[in-house]
Amino acid sequence: MTENTPSLWLKRGEERRLRAGHLWIFGNEVDTARSALNELPPGTPVVIRTNAGKALGTGYANPHSLIAGRLISRDPERLLDESLLVHRLNLALAARRRHFASDHYRLIHGDADGLSGLVIDRYGDVCVVQPNTAGMELALDAIIRALQRAVAPSAILIRADSGLRVLEGLESYVRWAEGEPREFLELEENGCRFRVSATEGQKTGWYYDHRANRARLAPYVRGLRVLDVFSYVGGWGVQALAAGASAVTCIDSSAAALDRAQENAALNGVGEGLTAVEGDAFEALQALREERERYDVVILDPPAFVKRRKDLRNGLAGYRRLNQLAMQVLDKDGILVSASCSSHVSADDLLKEVLGGARHLDRSLQIQEYGGHAPDHPEHPAIPETRYLKAWYCRVLPAWSTP
Amino acid sequence: MTENTPSLWLKRGEERRLRAGHLWIFGNEVDTARSALNELPPGTPVVIRTNAGKALGTGYANPHSLIAGRLISRDPERLLDESLLVHRLNLALAARRRHFASDHYRLIHGDADGLSGLVIDRYGDVCVVQPNTAGMELALDAIIRALQRAVAPSAILIRADSGLRVLEGLESYVRWAEGEPREFLELEENGCRFRVSATEGQKTGWYYDHRANRARLAPYVRGLRVLDVFSYVGGWGVQALAAGASAVTCIDSSAAALDRAQENAALNGVGEGLTAVEGDAFEALQALREERERYDVVILDPPAFVKRRKDLRNGLAGYRRLNQLAMQVLDKDGILVSASCSSHVSADDLLKEVLGGARHLDRSLQIQEYGGHAPDHPEHPAIPETRYLKAWYCRVLPAWSTP
Repeated sequence: MTENTPSLWLKRGEERRLRAGHLWIFGNEVDTARSALNELPPGTPVVIRTNAGKALGTGYANPHSLIAGRLISRDPERLLDESLLVHRLNLALAARRRHFASDHYRLIHGDADGLSGLVIDRYGDVCVVQPNTAGMELALDAIIRALQRAVAPSAILIRADSGLRVLEGLESYVRWAEGEPREFLELEENGCRFRVSATEGQKTGWYYDHRANRARLAPYVRGLRVLDVFSYVGGWGVQALAAGASAVTCIDSSAAALDRAQENAALNGVGEGLTAVEGDAFEALQALREERERYDVVILDPPAFVKRRKDLRNGLAGYRRLNQLAMQVLDKDGILVSASCSSHVSADDLLKEVLGGARHLDRSLQIQEYGGHAPDHPEHPAIPETRYLKAWYCRVLPAWSTP
Repeated sequence: MTENTPSLWLKRGEERRLRAGHLWIFGNEVDTARSALNELPPGTPVVIRTNAGKALGTGYANPHSLIAGRLISRDPERLLDESLLVHRLNLALAARRRHFASDHYRLIHGDADGLSGLVIDRYGDVCVVQPNTAGMELALDAIIRALQRAVAPSAILIRADSGLRVLEGLESYVRWAEGEPREFLELEENGCRFRVSATEGQKTGWYYDHRANRARLAPYVRGLRVLDVFSYVGGWGVQALAAGASAVTCIDSSAAALDRAQENAALNGVGEGLTAVEGDAFEALQALREERERYDVVILDPPAFVKRRKDLRNGLAGYRRLNQLAMQVLDKDGILVSASCSSHVSADDLLKEVLGGARHLDRSLQIQEYGGHAPDHPEHPAIPETRYLKAWYCRVLPAWSTP
């Protein structure tokens, strides 16, 4: 079955990480000459071999990417085809159905679902596919057929416009592969309904990864004033209002996202409680502080400040400054929900910045809870990068009150 | 107010950790001669001072402990007295009441609640107090009075029998300080009822820390066979049955704990489903494996294998062996819930051992969820030791099925 498939030969000893469970092969680990790596068209299916010739499994290669190879199956006879995709989709479905009564979730989460480079989100009968690598771009027809067999959605939207594609040398496009084009996608999360733009929103339109963290918010907000910073379409803010918050202010730099947030609040019968502030989060927080506005709960769910490891230092300083500003608009004995989605920033890194900010302001922190991914965003235990999301629920008190 | 209080003088520069938020002072950080540390009776209240004389706050000292001083208040005028205790109890109550409708929770969780060395668990109208340091032993009368003012329990039990007291040079005892002695304590958790021995059980009788993790279990067990290893009085197993598990086997080395687990299952109307196996967990798992018994879900909630840092290597090997054994009695596409309460073992350390075991058995792991403490076990952000509990929810698959 794989006799005509080219081989990706590893340098001697470079199979160790794969043997320990990892799925990625970096360019410097490949025996480039023997593999004729630079002659392989991006995304070519390959058999991955140790230098001694043992087949470790199959995958695909891309000479233009830092990650030159990705392992797809540890069975050297199984290629990334429709049959493998249907099997993986069914495995993924079984896990999602355990947790979610309605079909609104991330169905395929890349590496952790055994499909490195592929993301699929479900919005009921619409599937949104993100092929983020050349290998997945090449497999797109098989992906669509497999989706039809395993899920039978009434529409499939391809969002091939992720920034990750640039690293793979791929162009950007958005197109409907199946079904009637729609302007909006609808979803349900923690009992609230949301409507997002199908083709204009961030990522696939919604961030399902914070679902459990947003559910965790409810006990903290009843009857209280909430500030939702980087609100996007109101995921946190609207759910806070539904959980009984007395008022929610959403800050976002996108007027379109804020319009959507207002609509989503109205859709859930809580439109009265939401105030939208358009602007840069740092500047808006500063202005609120100067106006002596105070909140009982502040939620920080910023975009990744650290996209590449070399940005770590600046990114951490950004988290520090942001969290410090948030604490300055927090009433005494308030709750700060501090999230980060930078895979290069660990939960400990983030907490250190929040604590540093607190100590600088002579406040003490009590960690109430910690939240990671919802279970439709599984982690691959050998790939730390797949654990990217963290949210700390901090009680912020005067330092004299509790040390 | 503190003019007659002795000072604990730090060596030059040793205030840095306290300034960053920590609460502990190790013996080698104290200017011993100037503080006359060895003449202070264990538990003596002190004002903590930098070498230059600046008062950083108050606390208590114990020359016999590795932790020679603990900071209680950053206000140098406030000592550990009834008034401070009432204030801290009220702060703690406010946080618990946010989350819990009934009075069954950890009320005071040591450092993170600003009362280093003190633990108080609530079982409805009974408070169980663990004074784990000489300072808290000295303050016991004030603690009891403060509890009466803030909580007004009908009974207070002192469980002064923690192993931690040995490190403080304290003796071990158990006594009822207030109210009628009782044989049993009752509690509610995630909708189930439990009865535990008041004076004979482990710790205060129950481990509230896993509450959220036990709630997280429900979607994984419906209609399935569950193995609860180190079951103690059936916290996980009984809740699994209540969530719809078809059968639960509890393994524990204590016959008394297993009797209690059977009673607790009956108390919740699921007595039929529970089978108790008395024995060493490792041996019992081995025996089940040899008898080809298989389970859909295995829960590992062992006691701390790493009590001191020097036990780390052996302890990690223990977690590896335990998790590997558990995977060998797991049916294919099973769920392993792997917990650890060793503060010296990080979540990553534990995961590495689980993954190592899986790779050795040619299985792959998919992390479904991660759980830490319930919110009645807050963490102190500057004291990593207060983050001791972790639970990984792993899907275990054949390596050929997903890599």
